[in-house]
Amino acid sequence: MTADDIYRTVMAVVPPATETPFERASRDFLFDQVWSRPGLGIRDRRIVSLACVAAADAVKPIEDHVYAALRSGDLTIEQLNEITLHFAVYCGWPKASQLEGIVRRQWHRLYAERGEEAPAFPALPYEDLGTTDHAERIRRGQEEFVAVNAVPAPPPDSPYFFAGILGFVFGHVWQRPALSRRDRRLVTVPCVGLSDAAGPIAAHVGSALETGDVSWDEMQEVILQFSAYYGFAKGEALHDAALRWQTMQT
Amino acid sequence: MTADDIYRTVMAVVPPATETPFERASRDFLFDQVWSRPGLGIRDRRIVSLACVAAADAVKPIEDHVYAALRSGDLTIEQLNEITLHFAVYCGWPKASQLEGIVRRQWHRLYAERGEEAPAFPALPYEDLGTTDHAERIRRGQEEFVAVNAVPAPPPDSPYFFAGILGFVFGHVWQRPALSRRDRRLVTVPCVGLSDAAGPIAAHVGSALETGDVSWDEMQEVILQFSAYYGFAKGEALHDAALRWQTMQT
Amino acid sequence: MTADDIYRTVMAVVPPATETPFERASRDFLFDQVWSRPGLGIRDRRIVSLACVAAADAVKPIEDHVYAALRSGDLTIEQLNEITLHFAVYCGWPKASQLEGIVRRQWHRLYAERGEEAPAFPALPYEDLGTTDHAERIRRGQEEFVAVNAVPAPPPDSPYFFAGILGFVFGHVWQRPALSRRDRRLVTVPCVGLSDAAGPIAAHVGSALETGDVSWDEMQEVILQFSAYYGFAKGEALHDAALRWQTMQT
Repeated sequence: MTADDIYRTVMAVVPPATETPFERASRDFLFDQVWSRPGLGIRDRRIVSLACVAAADAVKPIEDHVYAALRSGDLTIEQLNEITLHFAVYCGWPKASQLEGIVRRQWHRLYAERGEEAPAFPALPYEDLGTTDHAERIRRGQEEFVAVNAVPAPPPDSPYFFAGILGFVFGHVWQRPALSRRDRRLVTVPCVGLSDAAGPIAAHVGSALETGDVSWDEMQEVILQFSAYYGFAKGEALHDAALRWQTMQT
Repeated sequence: MTADDIYRTVMAVVPPATETPFERASRDFLFDQVWSRPGLGIRDRRIVSLACVAAADAVKPIEDHVYAALRSGDLTIEQLNEITLHFAVYCGWPKASQLEGIVRRQWHRLYAERGEEAPAFPALPYEDLGTTDHAERIRRGQEEFVAVNAVPAPPPDSPYFFAGILGFVFGHVWQRPALSRRDRRLVTVPCVGLSDAAGPIAAHVGSALETGDVSWDEMQEVILQFSAYYGFAKGEALHDAALRWQTMQT
Repeated sequence: MTADDIYRTVMAVVPPATETPFERASRDFLFDQVWSRPGLGIRDRRIVSLACVAAADAVKPIEDHVYAALRSGDLTIEQLNEITLHFAVYCGWPKASQLEGIVRRQWHRLYAERGEEAPAFPALPYEDLGTTDHAERIRRGQEEFVAVNAVPAPPPDSPYFFAGILGFVFGHVWQRPALSRRDRRLVTVPCVGLSDAAGPIAAHVGSALETGDVSWDEMQEVILQFSAYYGFAKGEALHDAALRWQTMQT
């Protein structure tokens, strides 16, 4: 398979001609040398790449990757909407708002191409918001924190930890059923990678490996996919975090 | 007053000697030409700068600015903890986690310098999490959205809008009483500025001006303060949003 | 020369009137106090600024700076296309793809202003992608890594290091002849600066100084130019890396 064949499979469109050194090198590197690698499936690579392009803000790449995810069938619209909320937690609401709008537009584009009207997103029931019992929410948030992070839950003594981390991030978002925990890790690792916050990078790379949700070889592929889409400078920080976790295992 | 005098007032420490061309140019620009400007108070400039340095991830500037905010008395520890949660919404949880740790350490540093033990953060009561009635939370979230943004609330048809925007961001965080709405705008505008998301930039710059919470002249100063700490490239985008709002008023 | 004269030379257009406090302060700071400084030439300052605005995503500054680079003749279209690929390595493909589109549009704009058709980019031969001998590529990648970084090459035991760093970044991109190594450093230092990745920041600031490709005084100017466009928060981290390198020399 050529780089253009792989492009067609991944991006779900006819490959545009490559005319500049940038286009030629990127077509070859991204598709022939990264996306085609066997250690991580295309669907998983899509999740990592979506987080990177959404964070990078250049609108066309976000549109192209969202469209390709929907068109290929690798991700459903429900999963993309869950990815948007999870991404909002890890990269902030403004960038997520841009992603949210693009997901809607690409959903409509997919149906318009077939001459059809896209199904509307159904109004969500209040049950979607989770428990109404604060003590239950915090307790389940602490359990989820431990299950995801493989370390004890933080003390609930600041708004960031109480209302935020325990009440919302782990008390609600990580538990939402329409996106698996492993898929959520594939959004989270790129997001912490581009955030540069050393603690979260170590925590999320380490816990993905510790729990076995992501194998060592899969994590290497996640880091290479991330480096292609968000740069090798930040990729190195993720790679160092993986190496430090590995060192602590011996 | 010299640049060093202003440095001492703002950073609450003895000004380090400036030895390199970069240090001399930055001392002069930041303190003699930006912090000293009359159109926005030091306390408001601190909030903008904190959002910028927290987003920029370089640890020492975050430590310096958090310490200065506490030492000067311009921001209380409760306000800094609220800023951290608000910042988490707008720049994502990983960067906020780094800020949260630095706020704790600088709080302890402040007391250690006096030979004292810092008061512990009190455990927060469940009432801190807001209403347990989902319908009430969503209704109040819609009201807060309209009051802050000066546009209609979004339809609750995706997890991002329902659980996220209405259930948490406006249904809880913006309503938390220990940080004023105007102070929250001074965190939000820098955060959307560095996010590059055009919709949120227009929305938050426009609504701050529309509601009168931030005057035109104050917004010019907010954008200049932002530009000093996060660059004129992104500052220009914030300024363009302010100009477009102004054009729509005529 | 006034700030407006310097603006005209640098931006290659008639200076727009400055009407708001922000516009007056930024015109004065950027052009009268940074671009006009003698320690680094305008062409070199353009490369640093292009990396910053491209990473910052605000489209209009990218357009303005690319146009000015082409219009002034300080950078050729070949050099801009190489800068785009180099930038892609350090800041990721999505941002680079946005820069790439803007470079094309400004190239066409330059010719349209003269009533002419812009020459098409020539189709690139496959030889442009470098050697097909993997052993040769890795060997040359290790040599280039050492020449650029002044430290031993990393072990080729992860996809990030093997396929990425040795196979592509140093095995191909840094060796491409149409952009000099020194020019590549002027792209790389801002990119690592805004990435906040401490390892790459230390490595690239240090190796630029170590090899003598960039003098101490020139590096001060690079960091100040960066700070103007991407903020003094991150600029301080770059400056700290330069100081630590200097300390290790004594």
